[in-house]
Amino acid sequence: MSRIIDFYFDYSSPYGYLASERIEEVAEANNYRVVWRPILLGAIFKVTGQAPLTETPLKGDYAIMDFARSAREHELDYQHPHTFPIGAVAACRATLWIRDNSDESIRAQTAKFVHATFRAYYTQGKDITNPSILSACAVELGIDPDRMIEAIQQSDIKDALRKEVEHAIAAKIFGSPMMLVEGELFWGHDRLEQLGRWLKSGGW
Amino acid sequence: MSRIIDFYFDYSSPYGYLASERIEEVAEANNYRVVWRPILLGAIFKVTGQAPLTETPLKGDYAIMDFARSAREHELDYQHPHTFPIGAVAACRATLWIRDNSDESIRAQTAKFVHATFRAYYTQGKDITNPSILSACAVELGIDPDRMIEAIQQSDIKDALRKEVEHAIAAKIFGSPMMLVEGELFWGHDRLEQLGRWLKSGGW
Repeated sequence: MSRIIDFYFDYSSPYGYLASERIEEVAEANNYRVVWRPILLGAIFKVTGQAPLTETPLKGDYAIMDFARSAREHELDYQHPHTFPIGAVAACRATLWIRDNSDESIRAQTAKFVHATFRAYYTQGKDITNPSILSACAVELGIDPDRMIEAIQQSDIKDALRKEVEHAIAAKIFGSPMMLVEGELFWGHDRLEQLGRWLKSGGW
Repeated sequence: MSRIIDFYFDYSSPYGYLASERIEEVAEANNYRVVWRPILLGAIFKVTGQAPLTETPLKGDYAIMDFARSAREHELDYQHPHTFPIGAVAACRATLWIRDNSDESIRAQTAKFVHATFRAYYTQGKDITNPSILSACAVELGIDPDRMIEAIQQSDIKDALRKEVEHAIAAKIFGSPMMLVEGELFWGHDRLEQLGRWLKSGGW
């Protein structure tokens, strides 16, 4: 099946986390599948000149309030992390290693690893920049954590993440979450309903 | 009736225009009324350090596309103006003169004037920085255009707009549209559905 939603997200994005909990439902209801695309907004913000949301005066206070309010509306757990934002390079590399693994049984764990990592950070306050936390997420899914940690230190995975971010910029991704479906971009957790209407209706 | 939605908008904001066409329906369905609060994002961006949406790389292209797509979804006319963004000082002052007028028959035209001005800019490409265009909007509503144009050049109206913007910043308004209901802020045309759910349910 080629009906794909490219789901771009930064682990350091609360709206990315909230949308990650809901995107599969939107996709499945419309016979699409999700491709998980971890990105680094830090690299993208160098192109766009943007600053992290929570560091913008006025807007930052609203964002902190709205992360929690949006989570409550959809009955999702959410605790704003003490250390925020973070550079989620290791988590991104681990996700790519799993997603693009030659072993199908590992590839099949991609969505679960994304969820485990996001939840470790946003519901348990764990430091997902720490390899031991990523290892714990892997172990839960039957993935050998030592192999994973060794792999994400190799240059091929580092190159893969660099390319993933470059491709995202070429696809005009500037935020998290962003959903790309057949050339059409949707930005934001608050656009999931609109994305659902788009998929259902075939667009307008 | 004291159930009020403070609707903050900049005439230079396409999402402000789109929301202006839909906010009364959301309000009326829940027994609220709209207070129209024109603001100048230029002054607010000096506090927040933000740039106009369309001038941000990547994000700007998405915004231009999304203004039109959002309009199409809700079957609203929209033509992206040739001159954009604009400084809508005169339009804001005219709106405040009408909204806070001592003559009740003039005050009663506030919503219609907001709609006429927004539509002149976003559906007819008219230059709403030009007093003659604002006069034409006023004439349609039975408002004496000469009185209005004279009034918006007086210092009391200039002060009133300055205070309106200061109050907006004090209320943590940083974008357009923003809706303030009983201390709760909602930002964006794409939050009208959520605002409706909030009003209906009493919040969460």
